[in-house]
This record gives sequence, structure tokens and C-alpha cells, in this order.
Amino acid sequence: MIEKLFERLQEIYPEMVSFRRDLHMYPELSHHEVNTPEKVAAYLEGLGLEVRRNVGGRGVTGLLKGGKPGKTVALRADFDALPIQEENEAEYKSRISGVMHACGHDIHTAALLGVAKTLSEVRDEIEGNVLFIHQFAEEVIPGGAKSMIEDGCLDGADVIYGAHVWSTNPAGTVGVREGDAMAAGDTFEIHIFGKGGHAATPHLTIDPITAGSQLISNLQQVVARKVDPVKTAVVSVAAFNSGTGFNVIPDKARITGTVRTFDEDVRSMIESLIGEIAHSTCKAVGATAQYEYVRGYPAVKNHPGETKRIEKLAIELFGKENVIQMPAQMGMEDFAYYLQEVPGTFFFVGGNSEKIEEFPHHHPRFDVDERSMIDIGKVFISAVFNYLSSETAVENMAAEVQSN
Amino acid sequence: MIEKLFERLQEIYPEMVSFRRDLHMYPELSHHEVNTPEKVAAYLEGLGLEVRRNVGGRGVTGLLKGGKPGKTVALRADFDALPIQEENEAEYKSRISGVMHACGHDIHTAALLGVAKTLSEVRDEIEGNVLFIHQFAEEVIPGGAKSMIEDGCLDGADVIYGAHVWSTNPAGTVGVREGDAMAAGDTFEIHIFGKGGHAATPHLTIDPITAGSQLISNLQQVVARKVDPVKTAVVSVAAFNSGTGFNVIPDKARITGTVRTFDEDVRSMIESLIGEIAHSTCKAVGATAQYEYVRGYPAVKNHPGETKRIEKLAIELFGKENVIQMPAQMGMEDFAYYLQEVPGTFFFVGGNSEKIEEFPHHHPRFDVDERSMIDIGKVFISAVFNYLSSETAVENMAAEVQSN
Amino acid sequence: MIEKLFERLQEIYPEMVSFRRDLHMYPELSHHEVNTPEKVAAYLEGLGLEVRRNVGGRGVTGLLKGGKPGKTVALRADFDALPIQEENEAEYKSRISGVMHACGHDIHTAALLGVAKTLSEVRDEIEGNVLFIHQFAEEVIPGGAKSMIEDGCLDGADVIYGAHVWSTNPAGTVGVREGDAMAAGDTFEIHIFGKGGHAATPHLTIDPITAGSQLISNLQQVVARKVDPVKTAVVSVAAFNSGTGFNVIPDKARITGTVRTFDEDVRSMIESLIGEIAHSTCKAVGATAQYEYVRGYPAVKNHPGETKRIEKLAIELFGKENVIQMPAQMGMEDFAYYLQEVPGTFFFVGGNSEKIEEFPHHHPRFDVDERSMIDIGKVFISAVFNYLSSETAVENMAAEVQSN
Amino acid sequence: MIEKLFERLQEIYPEMVSFRRDLHMYPELSHHEVNTPEKVAAYLEGLGLEVRRNVGGRGVTGLLKGGKPGKTVALRADFDALPIQEENEAEYKSRISGVMHACGHDIHTAALLGVAKTLSEVRDEIEGNVLFIHQFAEEVIPGGAKSMIEDGCLDGADVIYGAHVWSTNPAGTVGVREGDAMAAGDTFEIHIFGKGGHAATPHLTIDPITAGSQLISNLQQVVARKVDPVKTAVVSVAAFNSGTGFNVIPDKARITGTVRTFDEDVRSMIESLIGEIAHSTCKAVGATAQYEYVRGYPAVKNHPGETKRIEKLAIELFGKENVIQMPAQMGMEDFAYYLQEVPGTFFFVGGNSEKIEEFPHHHPRFDVDERSMIDIGKVFISAVFNYLSSETAVENMAAEVQSN
Repeated sequence: MIEKLFERLQEIYPEMVSFRRDLHMYPELSHHEVNTPEKVAAYLEGLGLEVRRNVGGRGVTGLLKGGKPGKTVALRADFDALPIQEENEAEYKSRISGVMHACGHDIHTAALLGVAKTLSEVRDEIEGNVLFIHQFAEEVIPGGAKSMIEDGCLDGADVIYGAHVWSTNPAGTVGVREGDAMAAGDTFEIHIFGKGGHAATPHLTIDPITAGSQLISNLQQVVARKVDPVKTAVVSVAAFNSGTGFNVIPDKARITGTVRTFDEDVRSMIESLIGEIAHSTCKAVGATAQYEYVRGYPAVKNHPGETKRIEKLAIELFGKENVIQMPAQMGMEDFAYYLQEVPGTFFFVGGNSEKIEEFPHHHPRFDVDERSMIDIGKVFISAVFNYLSSETAVENMAAEVQSN
Repeated sequence: MIEKLFERLQEIYPEMVSFRRDLHMYPELSHHEVNTPEKVAAYLEGLGLEVRRNVGGRGVTGLLKGGKPGKTVALRADFDALPIQEENEAEYKSRISGVMHACGHDIHTAALLGVAKTLSEVRDEIEGNVLFIHQFAEEVIPGGAKSMIEDGCLDGADVIYGAHVWSTNPAGTVGVREGDAMAAGDTFEIHIFGKGGHAATPHLTIDPITAGSQLISNLQQVVARKVDPVKTAVVSVAAFNSGTGFNVIPDKARITGTVRTFDEDVRSMIESLIGEIAHSTCKAVGATAQYEYVRGYPAVKNHPGETKRIEKLAIELFGKENVIQMPAQMGMEDFAYYLQEVPGTFFFVGGNSEKIEEFPHHHPRFDVDERSMIDIGKVFISAVFNYLSSETAVENMAAEVQSN
Repeated sequence: MIEKLFERLQEIYPEMVSFRRDLHMYPELSHHEVNTPEKVAAYLEGLGLEVRRNVGGRGVTGLLKGGKPGKTVALRADFDALPIQEENEAEYKSRISGVMHACGHDIHTAALLGVAKTLSEVRDEIEGNVLFIHQFAEEVIPGGAKSMIEDGCLDGADVIYGAHVWSTNPAGTVGVREGDAMAAGDTFEIHIFGKGGHAATPHLTIDPITAGSQLISNLQQVVARKVDPVKTAVVSVAAFNSGTGFNVIPDKARITGTVRTFDEDVRSMIESLIGEIAHSTCKAVGATAQYEYVRGYPAVKNHPGETKRIEKLAIELFGKENVIQMPAQMGMEDFAYYLQEVPGTFFFVGGNSEKIEEFPHHHPRFDVDERSMIDIGKVFISAVFNYLSSETAVENMAAEVQSN
Repeated sequence: MIEKLFERLQEIYPEMVSFRRDLHMYPELSHHEVNTPEKVAAYLEGLGLEVRRNVGGRGVTGLLKGGKPGKTVALRADFDALPIQEENEAEYKSRISGVMHACGHDIHTAALLGVAKTLSEVRDEIEGNVLFIHQFAEEVIPGGAKSMIEDGCLDGADVIYGAHVWSTNPAGTVGVREGDAMAAGDTFEIHIFGKGGHAATPHLTIDPITAGSQLISNLQQVVARKVDPVKTAVVSVAAFNSGTGFNVIPDKARITGTVRTFDEDVRSMIESLIGEIAHSTCKAVGATAQYEYVRGYPAVKNHPGETKRIEKLAIELFGKENVIQMPAQMGMEDFAYYLQEVPGTFFFVGGNSEKIEEFPHHHPRFDVDERSMIDIGKVFISAVFNYLSSETAVENMAAEVQSN
């Protein structure tokens, strides 16, 4: 049956492309999605699914109940766009100034809708249910996942799969990673308060720029000296701003940055250590520091069993040579929250091809081969049937055992 | 005669106050002075002096020819204002939004005009000439002094005196300093060019913030290790700006600051060393630096003999206890250029009194006791007569010697 | 048969203990082993093995030819001691002042001799050969492994296994790790040449202490900014020495340290970057740097198949709960060189028990439970038979296929 | 009379040379002077002076009572040597291994004895007294001056003069400086306590080397940011020592250095600030600091009137072109203590000539032109007569005034 479904997926590919391009032309920023969720909801309703709108804010879910009893598989796509001015010249380029689908969420959404349509046509054959989760606001902390979960979007789900199109992997490949797949991403902000004055009489000031510079030098020790070298962590200062002219020592400085980790102990140690360093470095010269650390998404921890399942299915679909063992990604994803609730895995579908000039995600010229939607669809469909049938088989076995 | 002139000065004090307050209400920024020089020129013309307008740009000079032959004494006042929003509530407060006489140049100008009026009334008694130099643009490099000199404002002058009202010295005092009186003030600007990227993958970037922080740390060695400790120097970074958010390593950083010195060798060493440190620190991590050093005013080097003259006259006028040996000032003054041409000295007249709340120069609430104009006037008038008579005496002696 | 061999191993345990304690009492430093290799060689000769002395210097090998044709399994133990004064009070404590078996090499050697004795008694049953490699000088670069390999110690070997007793793992456990198991360990030495002089006149000197301090600060960026965060690296300065008194700026400083990596590209990048930073930081202040980087052992890269083999055997022997997935170790081991020649794996046998107070390796009070020798022996013996029989099976199959 | 005394001084020059060379051949270290003070005391006794031995320890004083009543002028010379191995080849080179008069104290002593002999021959003409202070231990804190003063060496003195031969000024010159002449010299010592461990696992250690490096970087801010730029200060780290090998993070580090200042407020601020920086920098990374600051000699503050007296006399003796206005010296001198008790001045007599290759003080090849002893003698003798006669004149005047 799977093969027939793949043929059907191919047939509705033009519809997926059309849906994706419409999203691409009319992108909506995180937490400001209005038309996108409505389009998704309407499409799912058109397929006859049980649709919930405004899930946890602006999310949409659609439940496809199979013809036979069984487990529930959740599939997730995100649909928000980024505050980037598109520089591509495709005829489907963004019509919204300063907003762009530069991370492939349009691809994710259209692919998942294609899967929904395909599966909805064979619902009687499905031993269990498929739950389509269309998430808002993945790009901005706090993302949509957490509030959608709190609003019950995962209720009844036994497993969840999510895919990300990957512009730097070749189309036709699937990337998998067991365990630590994407980092926890936090931000910090340090305000240094010194005492301004004339730059010609520094002794009458408390210079926040020199203090801040020493602070940033000192921060290098966090990763270089204080984190177990076999564990992964990043502490990056992304901005240091103080002063405007040539002759005035400013009275304050602002430092902002991000921390990426996979291990919760390391995360907490770093949160605490940055504060220690900030306060001590400032105190040494008479300045004071105000320190705020904001935890973003936790690390995406892919479940070993489900990751192996996707790996195995991907090998069958695309060949062993096209399944990539991904390194841990330092980027973050609020898919992490779903995996704190149910087993599952997050995988990466290649989007680069000769049709597309390669640019990284979040670049104004980002684009991917739209055929990646077919590949995402194939993995999702395979996973649904594989999971439900194996679970059924196990339960059948268990049932037989019990009846003996 | 001097005593009579001082009485006369006192009589015209209300006129000086009125002129000063008019300037204070209608301040004009450096290099944008239009009405101020016209008011000054008109006043000097009204006294019957030979007036030049637009000297070196926007400067004004007035020549008072004495009734007897002799040397020429130049007296200088500056008349530009600052881009500061006044926060005082006096009825003569600035009417021009964002512009303020917050350094006392209004006082200097009105005081010098009072001197001009007083002396113009006794011109027949004067053995020589008095040259009134009203300078524009002292606050902004390149100041007006240099171009006024190039335009001949000092032609024929044998000596020059300049006064600065000083808000942190008590009214009724005169501050003097032989030799290094005010610092040479230069500025520098360093652009660091790294390579931007995601803050979660610093190894793919060349981080200009960390490089810049090390650079600023390294710069502390200039004064702490490389300048002869018995010489005076300041290297201050006044601004470090790079990056805006939390998650993106920027591709560049900008550092600006100032250097203050008194010794030309130290000045040149520092100019060179900052560049060495900037280039080397950046090179170490693969970044590049672009470095620009702009020389501002040279150091004010008060001539020993003329400084002693003013000190002696000030002791006679105000008493020994009211003559202050000033420490070297780290601020700069383009009066330095006049002293490169002719002997002279720059002195400081106290402006603080119980009538005025004390604030530093360039503060939005800066103000001084207007009676300081009388004190400036007295020193100038005394200096004119002392200089011209002593020079005459010397020449008379020389003449006698030759005639024998 | 394996079970019988294990019983036999237990019977000769006292002999192993005795041999181990003799080594412990008379330890010999790396590259200075004289009696130790002679004792080992004599023991192996006593078992009837083909013994080579002075292999690659001071190494010893013994070849046990099995009764049936087959592959050759190499087993390795190291036998050098450390320049540490033992602080234990056992009756078998070191009799050699300042020299101590503080890393368990005595355990390794005695365990391997026990295995040799056990297997030598059943040589007719062995389908292949067992090669016993007793290595000198593991603790000091360049270790003995490299020269023993160059001298042919691995000739004919198809696979190699090595074990390390591990004082911080509980006795009765086996630790395994696929891939990156132990780090490449290199050392570096930086001499900074400045210009000495009186500490009261730093401007006449080129201060190597301040330069060195900035250099060490700058080095923190190597790991914190320049190494891919998902890769593992350590750059540690272990010594900074410059100057002796209070009033003299010294003319030079010496910095030494170590680098640990697993990835050859990262290793080369760090080697180069430390030099860049050293030269640039010194150049900034007029000093010069002399930089030497000495590569030590490469990373121990355990072969996946052989690691899985040991893991599987260990689970059978000790139970799943006693097989530990080890994190990558930042210490180094010249077992790495053998693995560059033939497949194999290096594993960790727990040595801590209630009989022994726990101290880390290289501590003056280091010791381990001697029963770990039995555990090492069991894994080695199992591995020998498992490898040889499976290889035989595969060859038999291949032979059958060909004969069809 | 003065001219005759100078002729007499010239006559006894060979005796001074002989005495100086004897001291030079048999130098004695600070606080270990035995023969030197005995030789001095015996010489003074031979002249008929009132001699005290063991003044404040190892000092010697000789009092020459003049024939007429009057004030008392103290003249001081120091006589200790340095722990330096002489590298000169003169026939009078040091016979004591590792000890050398490398700072000219032998010159000072012999010159002062020459003065004593000269004056002792005309004691009847002297209106007042001359007190010869031969001080031990000038080179090592606490110097001899303080304990000699406590032991009454200055009792009755009205003024004091001291001279230092100066190897980098030309012979035949006298250097003078009013006010801040030589710096206060203090020392500090910082012990950093971290936690040692293997350099491959820095996260298990608290690294005192990185902490110490940041500390030293931070210390640069003291002079560069915190000291008034018109005041003079030096903070120099002279030694940083931690660790010995390549692979072990040490558990502690030691930093030593010196501070030079002229202003007591700056001195106290620096003493406090170094501690703040040490404690804070260490605290940031979990280390602790132990900080000790030892005050050495205070600054030599030459009294204006007495400095002008010596300057005037030197101009008369050597010509205006041979009187040098010295910059402040960053070296220290316990002559400072005498000046805290009585007025006086410390001046510098040139020692360099074509007869001598120029090396700095404390250099193994240091030497000076011995004729500098004549020059020291001339200034001392002139000062004695000038001071005593002028004081007499003043008192005579005062007496007359009172009697009227």
C-alpha cells in the first residue's frame, strides 16, 4: 500500500507546491500569524479531519481517526516566518516587505498538508490515528510548542515525528541523530554601571568599557576552563555597546549573548558562572553589574528507538548512502518540548540541489528544492504505518500471550 | 591710571553683563557662528577700532592703536557654544534648543569687549597697540585658532594672553601654570573586521567582539607600561560598539577614543603603539584592523616669563592667597597654536561663588559668577600696561646705550 | 571450555598477585626498564612461547602458536612506572625511592602473564595464534609502542586488544567506548623574549610578564571561539614562570602546556593558532616569541566492530549493569599507534572496591583491587576465542561458498 | 676662605681615592657591614670629631663642633654594597665574590670623609657645627636611616644635605630637583590558591595560571585608569611563577612586584585597589588570593628653599650650563626619612666621563669618575658655609630687630 500512497503523494505534489508558494509570498512573523493558521485549518477541514484552531495561541491541530483502533502518531510542522528582507528573484518571492520564509517552514507546512491529504484518503486502512500539529512561533522564545502542549495538543499522542528541510544537505538525503540533536539555547544580558566623565580624566570615572572588555576576556574561561571538554557548550557575546563619541567615558555598557548546551548541569553551571564573573570583574574596578539569564528552548533529545526507526525507514527509502549521521546542531528548536512528553525524533531532509544556489538558513537568499516536500512526506507516511503496525503487532502478541 | 581704569571697568560692568546674557540666550555652535561674530565686530567698530571680519573663517579682530609707538599685545577670547541642552532656569537661559554656552565663552567674549571699551577710552596713553582676537570654533577640531593665524590674525603681535573662566575655582582667584598647562588632545578610531555568523557556531566566525575586548585590555599597557611614568599621558577608549542582538556574531566592531599628552615624543610613540596593538591583536585571531589617528590641538605650553608676569600681577591684584598654582589640565585648547607663534600665557580665572551652584564645564547646569568678567578684565588691563611699559623701558635703555 | 579456563585463571591468581607485587616493589621508570622486561621474558619463555627481547628498545613479545591454523590475536600490556614517591603503607609498597607503579601497569603485566599461562596450557585447542605484547615506556613521549611496531612487534597480528585497570570504576565492571576513546596529547612551549630592566622604569623595558599574561588570556579563545563546539579539545597552560624578585622586570618568560584533541584538523588548527597568538601578542608590545609544539600520541580510535565484540562479551561475563559506556578520556595512550595498524579496541576494567581507598591514577596513594587481574584475564581469554572462532567460521563459510 | 678649602680638598684627593678603592675592594652587604663602619669611625676619630658607633645598628656619626656658636648642618653618605658580581677589570675591583659597590656608595663615603678632613682643619672658623652621618643599609628595606634617626642621629641638626653620584650624568654637573625627587617604593606579593589537577581535565581544577594572567591584565588598569594622569605612579609585576611541567595544572601561583608613587593618597589608593582586583579576579573563577603590601621608603621630597640654595651654589661652582634640572626619579632612597625631620635636599653629582664606560647603577660594570668626589665635596663645603653664615646673618638681623 505504501507504494501507492507515494504515487498519490506525487500526484498532489503540484498542490503542495502551490500551497507552499502561497505561504512563501505571504509570510507572517512569529506570534503574528493570522492568515497562515486559517489557511491550514481550512485545508485540514476540507480533508474531513477534526480541527482545532487557536491551540495554545495560534496553533492548529487536525486529528485523522483511522478506521481501526490503535495508537496515535503525531506529526509536526511549524509555519512562522522571519524578519528578513528576501533577496531572491523567484516569481513566488515574498510580497511582504521585511518578512520571509527563510528557514523552510513553508515547506514543512505544505509537506505535512500533503501527508494529511494522502492519509485522509486511506483512513479506513489505518490502525490508529494520526495527529497533525501545525505550530506557530518556532523562531521566537517562548515558542509555540510549549503553550500548544499546555493546551492539550499532544493529548492522546503516543509518539511524535518532526522534520526540518536542510538547505546545506543534498536533496534526497535524510539526516538523523540519536540523543543530543539540537542544543538548548539561552540568552543573557549584562548591564555594567560605572561612572561617566571626561575621557581625559579617567581617574574621576569608573570606566565601563575597560571593565566590559575584561569581562568578555574572562568569559572565555567558561568554555575553555570550566566545562568538561567532552561536553558541548558555547558562550557567545553577540553585542557589546557602550559610548558614542571620542571624549566622554560613558556611564554604562550593555553586553548580550547566547549560551548553547546539551547537559542541564553544564547549563546551570554556566548560568551561575557568567554571573560570578560579571559581578566580580565589575567589583574589581568599582563598577556594578546587573545580570539576567533567560532560558530558551531545552535541548532536542532524540529518542534512540524512534531515531533508529526513522534511520531504518530512510535507508529503505533512499539507500544507505543517502542517510547522514548528523553532528549535534548548536541551533535550537522547540520540538524539544514535545520530546519531553512523548518519544519521538526530529530529522533533517536535504534541500539542496542543482536547481538551487546554496545559502544557509536565515539568509536573504535561502531557498530549497521543493521536491524535499515529497521526501518529508515519504518518511512521515512510512513512519506512521511502521509505528502503528509494529505497535499493533506487539499488542497482538501481548494479547495472544495473555489469552493463552 | 590703572586704578581709574578698574573703576571705569566697574562702571561698564552692567553693559558686559547684558552682552554676555545676550550671547548666552542665543548661543551658536562651533563653525556655525553667524550673529555672534557680527555682534562682536559691530561693538568693536563702535569703539573706533580697526575691525576685520571673517578672519580665517568666522573670526573677528579689532586693533586698538595706542597714542604712542610701542609693541603690540594680543588678547584672545573665544565665542562658540556647545551642543548641550541647558538645564538651568536663569532668566537668561539659552533660547536655542540643544545649544548652550556651557564652557564660559560668553563670559570670555563680554569680558574682552569690556576691556576693549575701557582701553579705547585711554588710547592716547597707550605706548603701543592692543589687538583683540575674538575666535570662533574653539570646541571642535580643527579649531578656529589655526586658520585665524594663517589668515594673519597675529601679524604684528609681540605677546598674547588668554583667560578661561574656571567653574571649579573660587571667584576672585587666578590660576597660573608655567610650561605644560593643557594637554595635546588627539582622537583615534579602530574598525575591526571579522566575519559574522551564528553565535551558536563561533568557530565559523571571526569574532570582532572578543578581539576588540582583548585589544582594549592590551591598550591599558600603553600608559601602564610604555609611557615614562614621570610623563603624563591618557589613552581612553570612549566607545566600543559591535552587534545588536543575542544570536548573531557581528562582522565588525568600532572603537573610538582619545589620547592626551604633553610630550611630542610620547604622543608619537602612542600613536604608533595603538596601531601596533590593534593590528597584532586582530591578526592573532584572523581579524583585521583599520586604524586612524587624528591629531587635535597641541599642548598649551605657557611661556615661563609671561606666566611669571601674570602671576606677579595677579598677586598684586588679588593677593598671594588667591593665586593658584594649577596642575596640568588634561583638557585641550587651541590657544596652543598662538603660543607656537609668540610668547604668552593662558590663565584661569575663578568663577565659582555662593551665587552659583558648582557644576563642571560642559554640564547642562554649568554657570559662573559674572563678576569673573571684572577679574579677567583687570588682569588683561594690567598685563597690557605692564608689558608695554616694561618693553618700552627696555627699548629706551637700549636706545640710550646705542646713543652713547 | 572457557569456563574451565576461567577456573584455571583463578587457580593461578596467587601467582599473578605475587608477580604483580614484585613489580610493584621494584618499579622501573620509562625508558629505564631493565629487570622488568627480563622477568617478563623469562616467564614467557618458561611457558614455552617464542620470545623476543629488546623489541623496539626494551619491549618483549611472546608468540603462542595454537594447535590449529588461524588468525593471530595480539594482547598488550605496558610495564613502566612513574617518578612518584609512594605514600601507601602496603607491605608490597615500592622499595625504590621516588618511583612507583601509580598507574596500574604492574596489574596489566601480571594479568597478561596469567592469560599467557592459562592459554599456553590449551594451545592445542587454539585455532590460530596469540601474540603477547609487553610494552615499555607508555608514560613518556615518545612511548614504546611506536618503536616496537617499527621493530615488527605487530607482524602477523590481525587484531589487538588492550586493557587499563581504572581506579575510579568499581571492580567487576568493564568500560567500553567506540571511536574516540582517549585523546591525542601534545605539548607546547613558548619562550617570550622581552627586555629586562628596573621595575620602576617599565617604559625602558619590554615586559614579558604582562605580554605573557595577555597571551594566556588570548589563548582562552582557542577552545572558546575557534574549535567547533561539537568537537572536543583542551588547551591548558601548565606553567608560567618569569622573574624572581620585586624590583626587576625579567627579560624573558616561559610558558608550557598541553593540548588534547581527537580530530586531526582541530589538532593542526590549534597547533597553528597558538603560534599565531603567541607571535602576535608579543609583537604588539615589541617582544618576540619562540614557539615549539611537540606532537605526542595520537587519539585512541577504538574500532566499532571490535568494541562491540568486547562489549558483548563483557555483558555475558559481568552482566549488562556492569558494562559502562565510557565518556571520551582526555588522557593519552600510545595504544593509539597499534590501532593505526590493525583493528582492535582498548577497554577499562574497574579497580575500585571496598578493599581499596579510592585515589586517582598518578596519585601517591593510588592502588586497585588485585582481583581486577582476573577480570582483565577473562575478557582477554573470551576475546581470543570469540575472535578466532568467528573468524574461522567466516572463513569456513567462505570456503564452502567457493567450493560450491 | 672657600677657595682655599677647595685647594685643600684637591690636595687630599689621593687619600679619598685610596679610601674609596679600599671600600670598593672589600664591599659589605646591607645590614652586614662590619669593617666599613669601623674604618669610617676610626678615620673620623683621627680627625678629632665626636664619634658615635652602632648608631641605630651599624651607623656612624661624627660631630664637628665649630669654633663659634651657630646652627648644625648634617651631611649624609651611605656605605653599603650590593649582591652583584663585579665584571670590571680595574685593579681596585671587588675582592669579595658576589658583592660589589655598584651604586657609588664608596664614592659617597670617601667624599664625605674628605669633607670632614677639610673642615676639621678650619673648625675654628665655623659658625656652628657639622654633623657627618655615615649610614648603613640604604639598599635594603628597612634601610638604616629610620633606625639611625630613632637612635638620635639627627639630634640637633637644622638642615641636611645628601648627594648621589650619578653614572649617567656627565662629571662636572650637579642635578637638582625641587619637591618630588625620588619615589616612594613599596612591594606587594599575591598568592593565588586554586585547585591543581590534570591539565587534560581543566574543569576539575581551579586554574591559578589563567586567573593570575587575568589579574595581571587587570592590574594594568590601576595606572592606566585609576591614577590621576598628572600624578606619577608605577605598578610593576616583577615575577609570576606557577607550575613546572606540561600536564599538571598547579594549585597555586605567586605574583610579586613593586609600586612607586609620590603622592600618599595615590599610594593608599593603589595599595587598596591591587587587593580589590586580586580578590575579585580570583573570586570570579573560584580561586582565592592572599595579598600582602609592604611599604618601603617614602618619597624623597626636597625642600624648595634648600634645593634653590644648592642650585644657586652649584651654578656658582660649575656654571649654569652644568646644573641639570632632574626629572623625578622612580628609584627610592631612605634619605626621604631625614627630610621628614629637617629641611634639606638630595642632589645628584655627575660621574660619567671619557675615563669611564657608561653603565647604569646596579650594573656589574658600573663605575664613575672618581673626581666626582671633589665635586661632591665642593657642594657640601659651600653649603655648610652658606647655610651657617646666612642663618647667622638672619639671626643677627633678628637680634638687632629685637634689640631696637
